[in-house]
Amino acid sequence: MKKIQEYTKTELTAEQEKLRKSYESFRAQHLSLDLSRGKPSAAQLELSEALLRLPKPGDTFGEDGTDCRNYSPDVCGLPEVRRWFGELFGVPWNLVIPGGNSSLALIHDALSRAFIFGPLPGFTPWGRLEKVKFICPVPGYDWHFHSLDQFGIEMIQVETGEEGPDPAEIREIVKDPDVKGMICVPMYGNPSGVTYSEAVVDCLASMETAAPDFRIIWDNAYMVHHLYDEPEKRDRLANIYDLCVRYGHEDRVLMFTSTSKMTFPGSGISAIAASPANIKEAERILHYRLVGYDKLNQLRHLRFLPDKAAVEAHMSRHAAILRPKFEYIENVLEEEIVKAGLGHFHPPRGGYFICFYALPGCAKRIVELCGEMGVTLTPAGAAYPHDVDPKDSAIRLAPSFANAEDIPVVMQVFVTAVRMASIEKLTN
Amino acid sequence: MKKIQEYTKTELTAEQEKLRKSYESFRAQHLSLDLSRGKPSAAQLELSEALLRLPKPGDTFGEDGTDCRNYSPDVCGLPEVRRWFGELFGVPWNLVIPGGNSSLALIHDALSRAFIFGPLPGFTPWGRLEKVKFICPVPGYDWHFHSLDQFGIEMIQVETGEEGPDPAEIREIVKDPDVKGMICVPMYGNPSGVTYSEAVVDCLASMETAAPDFRIIWDNAYMVHHLYDEPEKRDRLANIYDLCVRYGHEDRVLMFTSTSKMTFPGSGISAIAASPANIKEAERILHYRLVGYDKLNQLRHLRFLPDKAAVEAHMSRHAAILRPKFEYIENVLEEEIVKAGLGHFHPPRGGYFICFYALPGCAKRIVELCGEMGVTLTPAGAAYPHDVDPKDSAIRLAPSFANAEDIPVVMQVFVTAVRMASIEKLTN
Repeated sequence: MKKIQEYTKTELTAEQEKLRKSYESFRAQHLSLDLSRGKPSAAQLELSEALLRLPKPGDTFGEDGTDCRNYSPDVCGLPEVRRWFGELFGVPWNLVIPGGNSSLALIHDALSRAFIFGPLPGFTPWGRLEKVKFICPVPGYDWHFHSLDQFGIEMIQVETGEEGPDPAEIREIVKDPDVKGMICVPMYGNPSGVTYSEAVVDCLASMETAAPDFRIIWDNAYMVHHLYDEPEKRDRLANIYDLCVRYGHEDRVLMFTSTSKMTFPGSGISAIAASPANIKEAERILHYRLVGYDKLNQLRHLRFLPDKAAVEAHMSRHAAILRPKFEYIENVLEEEIVKAGLGHFHPPRGGYFICFYALPGCAKRIVELCGEMGVTLTPAGAAYPHDVDPKDSAIRLAPSFANAEDIPVVMQVFVTAVRMASIEKLTN
Repeated sequence: MKKIQEYTKTELTAEQEKLRKSYESFRAQHLSLDLSRGKPSAAQLELSEALLRLPKPGDTFGEDGTDCRNYSPDVCGLPEVRRWFGELFGVPWNLVIPGGNSSLALIHDALSRAFIFGPLPGFTPWGRLEKVKFICPVPGYDWHFHSLDQFGIEMIQVETGEEGPDPAEIREIVKDPDVKGMICVPMYGNPSGVTYSEAVVDCLASMETAAPDFRIIWDNAYMVHHLYDEPEKRDRLANIYDLCVRYGHEDRVLMFTSTSKMTFPGSGISAIAASPANIKEAERILHYRLVGYDKLNQLRHLRFLPDKAAVEAHMSRHAAILRPKFEYIENVLEEEIVKAGLGHFHPPRGGYFICFYALPGCAKRIVELCGEMGVTLTPAGAAYPHDVDPKDSAIRLAPSFANAEDIPVVMQVFVTAVRMASIEKLTN
C-alpha cells in the first residue's frame, strides 16, 4: 500500500474527495456505535450465570467451619480464598488479603493509609508532606490518574515502550526523595496492551530509590486475561515480589487484582498481596475499618471457580469471545492504517484494549470525526495525567463490549477518520 | 428481696458460703457458654435463606435498565436502592449513597476523606491539624473508639443517661474549636440500649459549635431493630437531618445504616445519607475510589425486601426470636440483682444489647468470675475509649447469638458472679 506521505497532490485531492463521500455516507446512516467501553459483553456475562445460584443453601460454610452468612471478625477472610489468590499472584496465602468488589478501592484504601498513617509505622504520613510524586507510565489507566490527582500527587509521565517504561529513565527519577511511588498495570496494560519485560521488572525491584518508603502500586488486573490458549502466544510477567525479596526491597510492591473481568464486574472479589510488614499494617487498619469483606461472595466465587485450572478454562471461554474482535481490529489497523504510514500499535496478546498511536497531533481530531460519524471512542488524552496526551497521538480502542457484527462498520469509520485527520495534518 | 448492703455479718458469711458452692458446682460442669457475641443466631440467619437464590437469572436489571452484572460507572448505584434507604432514613433518595457490605467501612471512609481532603472543599484536612477531638457518648461501640483512636482522635467521654448524653455537657464541650465531631449509635445504642430523646437530638442539631466543620457520625445501625411489634413499646428517634436543616446546620450530620442485622451480617448492603454538599463531596471522592458498589447484591436485597413493609415484617420475625432471650435476661437482672441492690440497667426496647451497670469497681471481677465458671462475656471496659471504664461498672450482655436453652444457666452463673463480686467489694 502506498503511504499517504508519498501521494502526489492530485492523488491527495482525489483521496480527500473519496473520504468526504465516505464521511457523508456514514453521517447519513445515523450510526450509534461505541468502542469506548472496557467492559465485558453480554455473551461474556452469560459465562458466569451459574454464580447467581451459588453458594447453595447449606453450603455456606468455609473449610474451617466459618458460617459465611454471619460476622466473623477476621478482615483477612477465608483461608481458602487467600490460597486461591495466592496461587494467582504466586505468593504464599498469608501475604494476601482478599477484599470487596473492587481492586480500585483496595488501591485507594492503601493510598489513604499511606496519607493518614504512613506506609508503615515509623514513616511520615504522606498527607503531612509538602509534596508527593508518583511515576506514571503512559498511556495508562485514567482512573488511576484521576485518583492520584485527587490525592494531590504530582504525576511524572514515563512513556511505555514495547517492554514497558524505560529502566534508565525510571532509575533517574527515583533519585528524587519526593518520588514516593509508581502506579501501573504491568500486564496487558490498560490501554497499552504491553507486558513489562523481565528486565523492566528486575529494574523496578532492584533499583535504589531515594525515598525509603517508595511503593509500587502493581495493578495486575489482567493477570489471567490471555487472548490465546497457546502458551507461546501469551505474555509472561515476572514475579515482582520474588525479585523485590531477592534485592532486599520486599516492602516495595503492593500487588492488586480482582475477578472483575473474570465473572461479574462490580460484583466480584479483589485482593491485595504484599510483604509481611505491609500485610500486617493493612490488616491493623482494615481491622477497624470493617468487620470483614463479603465472605459469602468470596465463597460464591470459590464454588464457581474452585482452582487455577477452573480459572484457566473459564478465561479461555472469555478469550474465545474476545479474540475474533481483537484480531479483526488489528488486521484492519495493520492493513489500512499502519501500511499507509498513518500510525502504529502494539498487538496485545491479552487484556481489554488496543492502543493505536496516530500521527502526532491527530488523535483528538480522529475521535471527533468518529463521533460525527456516530462512533464513540474514548476521548483522546484520557490515558494521560490531566487528560492531556502531549503528542495528541494515542487512541484507546475497547473491543469487548461492542457487538461483533458492528465492528466492521466501526473500523470503516475509524479508517476514514484516521485518513481524513492525517491528510488534514499533513497538508496543513 | 433484702439488699445485700443490709445483710448482717452472719448472713453475709452464709451467703458467701452458698455462692462459693455454686461457683464450685459451675466450675465442675466445665461449661463453655458465651454471651459476648453481638451477632444473629443461626435461627435468625435462616430467615434470610431465600437471599441465596436472588436475584434470579434474567432478573439482574435495575429499573432504569442497568445490567447489574456489569460495570456501570455510577458510584451512587441503583435509584431504587437509594429510594429504599431514603425511606428508612427519612430523607430524599438523592441524599443517599448506598455502599458495600459494611457501614463501618463507610464511616471509616468518611473519616479518611475528612483527614485527607477536609470534610468539604475549603476546610483544612484534619490530617494537617495538630489536634482533632471527638465527643464519645459512653458506653459506646468499641469499634468506633478503636477506629477513632487509630486516627489519633482524642476522645472526650460523655455519659449516656436514659435520654442519651447530657445536652448541657455537650454544649460546653463544642465550644472548643478542636472538637470536630461526635460519634454515636443514637437508637437502641450499642451497648446502652438507649435511644436519644427528641430534646437531645434537637440540641445536637441546634447547638452552636466552635468548629465550623463539626460532624456527627450518626450510626443508626438499629433503626428498624425493634423488639416489639406494638408501636407504644418502641422507641422513636427524631429525624436529625430535618432538625439540622431547620437550624441551618444541614452539613453537620452524616447518617449511616446497613442491612447487617436484617439479613446476613457481612454480606449485606449499607448506606450513607447526608446533605447535598456532603453527598456531592462523598461522590466526588468515591467516584475514583471504585467504579461502583456491588449492585447485584443491592438488587438481591431489594428483591428480598422490596419495601418498608417487607422490612417491617421481616424484622418482626427477628424480634420474635430475640424477644424471649431479652425478656428472660431482663427478668433475672431485675429480680435477682437490681432488687438485691447490686446494680441497674436500662431495659432496651430494641437493638442487640443489654448494658448492666454493676456496683462501681465490680465489672472486671464479674467478667473474670463468669469466665472461671465457663461463661464468656465481653471484656469489662470494652465499651469505653482505650478499653477503660472509669467506674469499672458497665457490662455488655449480648443475648442474640446464645442458644435460648443455655441462657438460664448463663444467667445463674452471672447472678452468682455479680453477688460474689459485690460482696467482695462491700466487705473489703
